[in-house]
Parts: sequence; structure tokens; C-alpha cells
Amino acid sequence: MPFDPADLTYNDAGLIPAIAQDADTREVLMLAWMNAESIAQTLKTGRVTYWSRSRQSFWIKGETSGHTQELVEFRFDCDQDCLLVLVNQTGAACHTGRRHCFYRTVKDGEVIENLAL
Amino acid sequence: MPFDPADLTYNDAGLIPAIAQDADTREVLMLAWMNAESIAQTLKTGRVTYWSRSRQSFWIKGETSGHTQELVEFRFDCDQDCLLVLVNQTGAACHTGRRHCFYRTVKDGEVIENLAL
Repeated sequence: MPFDPADLTYNDAGLIPAIAQDADTREVLMLAWMNAESIAQTLKTGRVTYWSRSRQSFWIKGETSGHTQELVEFRFDCDQDCLLVLVNQTGAACHTGRRHCFYRTVKDGEVIENLAL
Repeated sequence: MPFDPADLTYNDAGLIPAIAQDADTREVLMLAWMNAESIAQTLKTGRVTYWSRSRQSFWIKGETSGHTQELVEFRFDCDQDCLLVLVNQTGAACHTGRRHCFYRTVKDGEVIENLAL
């Protein structure tokens, strides 16, 4: 069946959440948002392209930082309202310079930071 | 630092996306939503508890199906607007009976279903 981004389910802002996972390590790197056009761009160019909610513009991951995400596999879920992109991540996925964004864990009611990242 | 669910950032509906990842296989299983109270319940009980947007009620994963998610690790991201829960998944995470929800891939413009799931 041909894929059409219009067949996916978007929120009121026309966006769908996209989970980025490292294709090699299987680490979950980050979650960001896409719209139909950024999905089309991602599939066409092979460079993961989000929609920046703060800047209200396309966000070609790594365009300024060099920390690009090369698309390895593009998946969507049962309800067609969430994406999973498997990527080759260059450098840090997180804007803090860490490899991924989920560097804080809650343990016994306390926030623990993963200092190895 | 003590963790307080109120410190996280929620959308207009009071919800935050939660990615569930298998703690052993590192497969991304699903994405669902939590509110502050379901986060507190998840941490207190060790059973992953979402907020069902369709039913507008707490959704203790597997309560009716038996396909429970035992919490292994609870993380949150740099912007404090997304959660990652590592879980021990019993049975299928997806309501279709598949192990996870991301069983469809887009390849060369076509939708390919992973028949192994």
C-alpha cells in the first residue's frame, strides 16, 4: 500500500510525535514533533526533519549543530498517531550536549542524573 | 533533588507523552499519555499507569488484558515534557496483540507490515 502522510492522525496543531531511536544502540534519543510536510521531507532526503514548535519552522536536525540524524527506518504505530524513526545519530542528540535527552531518572522519590552522558 | 510530578511540563489537557521501552530487548513498545496523578501512581505501585484520552480515565496497563508493564526505570527528558519508562512487558504491548505498536515501516513509498510480530 502506498504511504501517504495525510493518512496519519495529527493533533489540533497538525503535529504528530516522533520518537528517535539509535539504530545501533537502540537507545531512545529524543522525542520531537513532525507535520505532514516534514515527514515527506524526512522520507525524501533521508535526513530527519522535525517541526520546531518554538520557532514554528522546519527543523532539519543537526543543520546548525552538525548533529544530524540519518534516517535508517521510518515506522508508525497501530493508531497512526505516533512515529518511530530509527536513525544514525552523529554526535549528541540532546541540545544540552548529551547523547540523548533522557538523562534523569527518578529513584526512591529523588531525581538522579546520569553523569556518564 | 526530590521529584515532584508538578515540575514537569504538561500540554493544555494536562498530559505528557510517555514512551514505553522494553528494559531487556530495548524495543520501543508504545507511546501513551500520563497526567500528574498517573505518574504518581506509576511510581508508587510500580505498575505503569497511563491516562486514557478516549475513556478519560486511568488506564493501568494490562488491568483487563493481563498484559502488564512492570516499571523498571522512570526517566524524563531535558525539557521535562516527555517521559521514558523502561518496563518488563508481559505479553503484547499493542492492543492488536502484537508485541509492540510500531509494526509498520515505510520503504520506497510503500507501507510494509512486519509479519513476524
